[in-house]
Amino acid sequence: MNKTLLKKYARLVVEKGANVQKGQGVVIYAAVDQQDFVCSLAQQCYKAGAKWVDVDWSCQELEKIIYRGETITQLCKVPQWRREKHQVIVDELPATIFILSEDPDGLAGVNKEKLQKATVARKKVRKIYMDQYDGKQQWVIAAVPSPKWAKKVFPELKKSEAVNKLWDAILQTVRVNKDNDPIAEWDAHNKNLKARYQKLNSMKLDKLVFNSSNGTDFTVGMNPDFLWMGGEETTQSGVAYNPNMPSEEIFTTPMKGCAEGTVVSTMPLSYRGQLIENFSVTFKDGKAVDVKAEKGEDILRDMIASDETAGYLGEVALIPKTSPIKETGILFYETLFDENASCHLALGAGFNNVIPGYEKLSLEECVAKGVNDSIIHVDFMIGSEDMNITGYDKDGKEFKIFENGNWSF
Amino acid sequence: MNKTLLKKYARLVVEKGANVQKGQGVVIYAAVDQQDFVCSLAQQCYKAGAKWVDVDWSCQELEKIIYRGETITQLCKVPQWRREKHQVIVDELPATIFILSEDPDGLAGVNKEKLQKATVARKKVRKIYMDQYDGKQQWVIAAVPSPKWAKKVFPELKKSEAVNKLWDAILQTVRVNKDNDPIAEWDAHNKNLKARYQKLNSMKLDKLVFNSSNGTDFTVGMNPDFLWMGGEETTQSGVAYNPNMPSEEIFTTPMKGCAEGTVVSTMPLSYRGQLIENFSVTFKDGKAVDVKAEKGEDILRDMIASDETAGYLGEVALIPKTSPIKETGILFYETLFDENASCHLALGAGFNNVIPGYEKLSLEECVAKGVNDSIIHVDFMIGSEDMNITGYDKDGKEFKIFENGNWSF
Repeated sequence: MNKTLLKKYARLVVEKGANVQKGQGVVIYAAVDQQDFVCSLAQQCYKAGAKWVDVDWSCQELEKIIYRGETITQLCKVPQWRREKHQVIVDELPATIFILSEDPDGLAGVNKEKLQKATVARKKVRKIYMDQYDGKQQWVIAAVPSPKWAKKVFPELKKSEAVNKLWDAILQTVRVNKDNDPIAEWDAHNKNLKARYQKLNSMKLDKLVFNSSNGTDFTVGMNPDFLWMGGEETTQSGVAYNPNMPSEEIFTTPMKGCAEGTVVSTMPLSYRGQLIENFSVTFKDGKAVDVKAEKGEDILRDMIASDETAGYLGEVALIPKTSPIKETGILFYETLFDENASCHLALGAGFNNVIPGYEKLSLEECVAKGVNDSIIHVDFMIGSEDMNITGYDKDGKEFKIFENGNWSF
Repeated sequence: MNKTLLKKYARLVVEKGANVQKGQGVVIYAAVDQQDFVCSLAQQCYKAGAKWVDVDWSCQELEKIIYRGETITQLCKVPQWRREKHQVIVDELPATIFILSEDPDGLAGVNKEKLQKATVARKKVRKIYMDQYDGKQQWVIAAVPSPKWAKKVFPELKKSEAVNKLWDAILQTVRVNKDNDPIAEWDAHNKNLKARYQKLNSMKLDKLVFNSSNGTDFTVGMNPDFLWMGGEETTQSGVAYNPNMPSEEIFTTPMKGCAEGTVVSTMPLSYRGQLIENFSVTFKDGKAVDVKAEKGEDILRDMIASDETAGYLGEVALIPKTSPIKETGILFYETLFDENASCHLALGAGFNNVIPGYEKLSLEECVAKGVNDSIIHVDFMIGSEDMNITGYDKDGKEFKIFENGNWSF
């Protein structure tokens, strides 16, 4: 990949994504085969005045060997040094940068019980710390291609061609090209998203009804006071950042306990390195009570059993079929992209920061207001070509939100 | 590199080097661009019954960026999670595998004060833990080529050719080829080294005198009770392991405070990613009192000032000019190899395990017997074509040890 473009992208992630502050630490999570981009990120972090940069390397191939080689008991242990690494985030509130590049089904074939139990054990530990720094520090998720991921997306191409083509697609969706100023582009994009969510906030919606010819027939309850959000967010101390790059969604947290009917997936879901395809989820009293899937049904069942609240919804997100990600025509097999191509829901934890004044509330108070709390948060896509979405406020007043897959307003 | 050979090498490192025991943990230290070999090692570890494998990844290019981007104060901080990672070794005594692959002068250009102070600060912390696990767990250092290291060794070749040629050289020196059983070869090799050091032990040497036409004129005191060692070592709990692959040296710890005269280097020394070339060290009362170098004299001066005892000797090692490493005719710019091509000394810490019954001695008692203690241990090469070494016991009895660069017996 062209070095100038790579640098432009790294700068965008550091300045507009994480918005690294002078004197702040930075933790970068990345795969071992991404050293060039990680080095470029680190340089941009120091340029932005970072006090320190720590890179937490991962290797999916090694992870697979570890899953195969260790017992469940061993895999569920979280060593003290790993806890101390989480504690650094609580204590110092560094910006965190997550670089995705992994093969979407790179952990296929790993014993599912091991994978599920180890994932739950680690997430439980991580949550102890996350609950303490959530909303207080900037974070961003962005992606770079690995050869295996690129081959998954473009199986007909040679490895190097596939990688180049995935680079092109990623840079296009994050608004980086050789002629533009991506930071200015993101400012304009954030402004557009803001106008959209402000309109939704003014409706004070009490519920949303989803209908599509593919079988989706679904109603989800809303808390009229919860805020819709999109694009740029702000930490409690007032630092703006863009948590997802790309990001096209307008989203909020639905009301826990209010979801009825069935939603049909419109894209495959990659969960912990394994694919779930052609599935549907049926809700009753807000909870997933039945799931069906042509592929990976057991993974889906295990996922919603991760803890007692994993079957409740944590997110409703609206994306029109004219989304630039949708328009690439590419199935990325990666939620960061695919969620921005299609309306979606998330199973698991909701976002507390949709509650005005959430900073002063305890976790329990947020839950009492209707935000689900769980160790998982997994997006799955339900947007379709003919999706209609209608909103209602407490008085039954109707608002057309989506018609035939696009915004009504 | 041929996959079968790679696997054979990984198995040698795990079984004969670290000798990973059933139920034992393993820590692997390796660079991010060595994931294939690391994965192969991890597989061999689990095959040997490892309970867990943790890989501590490093990236020299990133390290350089970090050195440039951070203040000395920040660089000298050792976070709690890093201490906890050292503590794991104290608590669980895993086998440790160090995989070298870095560019020998990959940190050239980094501010020397930063490098020196940060190195000392980290080594001081590490030493707190090392002193607790030293002699109790198996460890091994082995190497794999990185493109930059390979280009340093074979500057005239294309990158891929250089890597292949360095692979060939490494595999040759560690006795791995497509037709042999490297484990059987190492058993035979260890037997030969043992016969050699047993002969030296029987001499009960009090001092060694080194002379060479290049200007080396040097006498070092010995403790007649200290043991000469070579090849395989044994943990306090009786597990055999081979700490260096390759290894051709017969070595011991000299008597602290007894070294007079000048030694002239015969090979460049790569220290912390920087090269020191054509240098000499003059000793008085056991301590380096003067150094001269055509290149890197300041690095050498800083090195012997790392702590109060860094200027004292910690090792004397004897290697004939017919060593297989010498016979490759290759200058590896890497101590693991180059030290096995030539007689050498080490500045800094000595080995306590040369004292019979050292397990029952405190660190202070070992120092009192003549073993230097320091945060550094740096080998430098002094063997030459016409090196003569003569030993003397307490009664002045003379033993010819080396004549014209080769063993006299």
